[in-house]
Amino acid sequence: MSINININADMAEGFGAYDIGNDFALLDIIKSANIACGFHAGDPTIMHRVVKQANQIGVSIGAHPGYNDLWGFGRRKIEMNPQDLEYAVAYQIGALQAIAATVGEKVTHLKPHGALNNFAAVNEEAALAIGRAIKAVDPDIIYVVLSGSEMERAAENLNLVVACEGFPDRMYDDFGNLISRSILGAVITDPLQAAEQALRMVMDSEIISLGGHKIKRKIDSLCIHGDEASSFIVASEVRDRLETAGVNILSLPELLLN
Amino acid sequence: MSINININADMAEGFGAYDIGNDFALLDIIKSANIACGFHAGDPTIMHRVVKQANQIGVSIGAHPGYNDLWGFGRRKIEMNPQDLEYAVAYQIGALQAIAATVGEKVTHLKPHGALNNFAAVNEEAALAIGRAIKAVDPDIIYVVLSGSEMERAAENLNLVVACEGFPDRMYDDFGNLISRSILGAVITDPLQAAEQALRMVMDSEIISLGGHKIKRKIDSLCIHGDEASSFIVASEVRDRLETAGVNILSLPELLLN
Amino acid sequence: MSINININADMAEGFGAYDIGNDFALLDIIKSANIACGFHAGDPTIMHRVVKQANQIGVSIGAHPGYNDLWGFGRRKIEMNPQDLEYAVAYQIGALQAIAATVGEKVTHLKPHGALNNFAAVNEEAALAIGRAIKAVDPDIIYVVLSGSEMERAAENLNLVVACEGFPDRMYDDFGNLISRSILGAVITDPLQAAEQALRMVMDSEIISLGGHKIKRKIDSLCIHGDEASSFIVASEVRDRLETAGVNILSLPELLLN
Amino acid sequence: MSINININADMAEGFGAYDIGNDFALLDIIKSANIACGFHAGDPTIMHRVVKQANQIGVSIGAHPGYNDLWGFGRRKIEMNPQDLEYAVAYQIGALQAIAATVGEKVTHLKPHGALNNFAAVNEEAALAIGRAIKAVDPDIIYVVLSGSEMERAAENLNLVVACEGFPDRMYDDFGNLISRSILGAVITDPLQAAEQALRMVMDSEIISLGGHKIKRKIDSLCIHGDEASSFIVASEVRDRLETAGVNILSLPELLLN
Repeated sequence: MSINININADMAEGFGAYDIGNDFALLDIIKSANIACGFHAGDPTIMHRVVKQANQIGVSIGAHPGYNDLWGFGRRKIEMNPQDLEYAVAYQIGALQAIAATVGEKVTHLKPHGALNNFAAVNEEAALAIGRAIKAVDPDIIYVVLSGSEMERAAENLNLVVACEGFPDRMYDDFGNLISRSILGAVITDPLQAAEQALRMVMDSEIISLGGHKIKRKIDSLCIHGDEASSFIVASEVRDRLETAGVNILSLPELLLN
Repeated sequence: MSINININADMAEGFGAYDIGNDFALLDIIKSANIACGFHAGDPTIMHRVVKQANQIGVSIGAHPGYNDLWGFGRRKIEMNPQDLEYAVAYQIGALQAIAATVGEKVTHLKPHGALNNFAAVNEEAALAIGRAIKAVDPDIIYVVLSGSEMERAAENLNLVVACEGFPDRMYDDFGNLISRSILGAVITDPLQAAEQALRMVMDSEIISLGGHKIKRKIDSLCIHGDEASSFIVASEVRDRLETAGVNILSLPELLLN
Repeated sequence: MSINININADMAEGFGAYDIGNDFALLDIIKSANIACGFHAGDPTIMHRVVKQANQIGVSIGAHPGYNDLWGFGRRKIEMNPQDLEYAVAYQIGALQAIAATVGEKVTHLKPHGALNNFAAVNEEAALAIGRAIKAVDPDIIYVVLSGSEMERAAENLNLVVACEGFPDRMYDDFGNLISRSILGAVITDPLQAAEQALRMVMDSEIISLGGHKIKRKIDSLCIHGDEASSFIVASEVRDRLETAGVNILSLPELLLN
Repeated sequence: MSINININADMAEGFGAYDIGNDFALLDIIKSANIACGFHAGDPTIMHRVVKQANQIGVSIGAHPGYNDLWGFGRRKIEMNPQDLEYAVAYQIGALQAIAATVGEKVTHLKPHGALNNFAAVNEEAALAIGRAIKAVDPDIIYVVLSGSEMERAAENLNLVVACEGFPDRMYDDFGNLISRSILGAVITDPLQAAEQALRMVMDSEIISLGGHKIKRKIDSLCIHGDEASSFIVASEVRDRLETAGVNILSLPELLLN
């Protein structure tokens, strides 16, 4: 029996003259790229560049919609009614689909960005609005969700394919929620510890909380970061350890759409 | 033998709290709506509202991409390299396609807005960049062009379906080019005169220039405006006169894709 | 003994091709104009046009800073830390000061816009951040606040001149807070009723709540609206009734800085 | 007799989560900082951070206004009428003045950014519009201009204090104009060669053109860049060589306002 997992990362988060992250290096580690769609980051040219490279090396692409707030990089919550949100998400998916079309690629998943992701994780209306946008634009798009969140429920209610996400480099509390980055120790910077957590998520569908409890969690995709030197080493170690353990790293459509 | 023509108008050019034009009244006169896509005007919610109404009354919709310049309303030329332009146009088409999908509608034509339209009319590279965006995203999208412009040539070179546009309420010079709005008399405000010009365009494929010369021009679509009370009366008169003369007013896909 | 009051209104809330409100008509009714500063609305050219007209007819001007959210017109709350807010408000004050300088005018008051005004009314940190921005840029600028709000306390703590604002066309609850616009009856559309409330605010420093209670409130400035035909009639009636009663309508600096 | 010169550099060109350049290292080399004002780059918080540091180490600050085009980083020409430009520049000066006020600092010079600088160098109307904005907001602000440009003439016509700028790391043509960056060899990457050119500019008021001709040029300020490792070494070498030669490096107000 083979064990499969996806690895995803956020990409194309530059804008105009601004560059951020380390997209081309990360693309060699991951199998699915979350592409910023112009609202919190990303412009058509940057989107095109990353999508083209992803296409060439077999990394699947997904929409990474955010609040329309370049200044806040999508990390500041903006109060929106669910319908405005639905159309804003649809807009961003379509924009990326068209950019993808310029290189013969398709958009196969969606993962909300930043403050929108945090809000949709706990707010049913927002989670459903995002789901309706997916359903209207392309019902085969996989909804990448925080495991156990309102987004997971929304995806099920709307009969969307869902991918549950885990964070190898983040500590979880005893309820299985992510501990806020503002708490010391919330981010795991030790590559070996992160790789261990990744392996446990994949092999045992399990997380060890900060309090030492085992929490069961179905994880389809591991989210990694590459914005700092340390996080890139963590990402590499996670990938290496999984491969050494015989885990297949697949793109989201390979993993979930067959 | 039946004579057919299309009537188009620019739409959805509000933004957030801002409203502009008279979209719902105009929708009853035209058969194809050019929808602003968020760069020079238009936001996802406004785009949705107009697309939904157009869909319900049988008006076809097209993308109306512009420069990324809300302050200038897309009327200020911005120097862009052709590739940036191609991706920026693709982005806007895709965004509208997704909004259209939320009401089960399709994008069937494209007409550039304002300064971009003026520039692409005379610049081969820009005209081709827009054409390549169309071709990549959906090669069935009709490229609405100023008759005799670089855009018309670009559409032909790229094997795109083309619709040549005429302006019943504008005077033409002896070379068949539009006379600048800044020249007195460039805009025809007399409904009867505009309707006469419309009829001549449709029946005789002909324009009478300001200098009194007859210029042959194949016209597939008449562009009308509705932003002022007078222009709305002009638009109504044009439509009425054409119908009285037995001309069929069709949407662009009805006219050109069958 | 003469009784004095100020009347203010929000202005310059267009952007580029977009126009909103009825600035020039309103300027004849009010004595102090709150000028949008480019973040939620307003561009340098529109700001200049309104400031120039205000200057010519003796209406004082103030900054009307908002969240950086043109799409939401500053009506959507955006989570910001207090320091970012302080600098964003300072930026907007300075921008208006420079526009004012182009016509030899000065900025003499500040009133936050929309969601920022609502938030600062109940949040001490935000109220203080706005106050610190005023103090740093020009400590003589009058802080226009909702009577009884955190902004009023912040202004006092920072030793800023404060103007307490009342709304003749809005109903208050029994605690003296504005009733949300979403509640039926919250907006007073009857000119006579609004004028009566205005007169009571000015003459008796008193509001009659929806529940029929008398609430004492010191009011320095009445805020009126002009965005709809009905609200303009209300504004005119308020002004006429006050003048008939012998109340002097002064600008904020005339009222508070002498 | 002492020989004096200013060194300036562009600063605060990040936006939100985006960082660019190496502001804090550069601040130790220069004496005058051109601060982006939020249109092509820069946000209130970043502006504040750089202005605060500049103030602490005795670097004077100036406005660095650009086109309202974050996507294009102010490097794409946007057609604007002169009045819109005047108010847009005034707006940006005022915004920076207010940010400066939060740390007790003053704006003492102005240098246009990117495509605006290039355009104003050759266009009289634009050069004058910028000058009028300076004059209205604070007539003591020094207008930093390309030596021999329309901006220099505009500054003289408006009786503004002018600082003529030279570029140690750029080649000039035989007419004394900068050779376009797109031409190979236009940028001088050899620190020794750049330092030599700097010294010649300062000591002899002279440039050796690419064609080997000596061109007389009065230079008040040397513009250096720090965005790449190589340019930072160039900047350091320029400063070191000037100091070794006994040249005093002064801020613009020290140099020109006494």
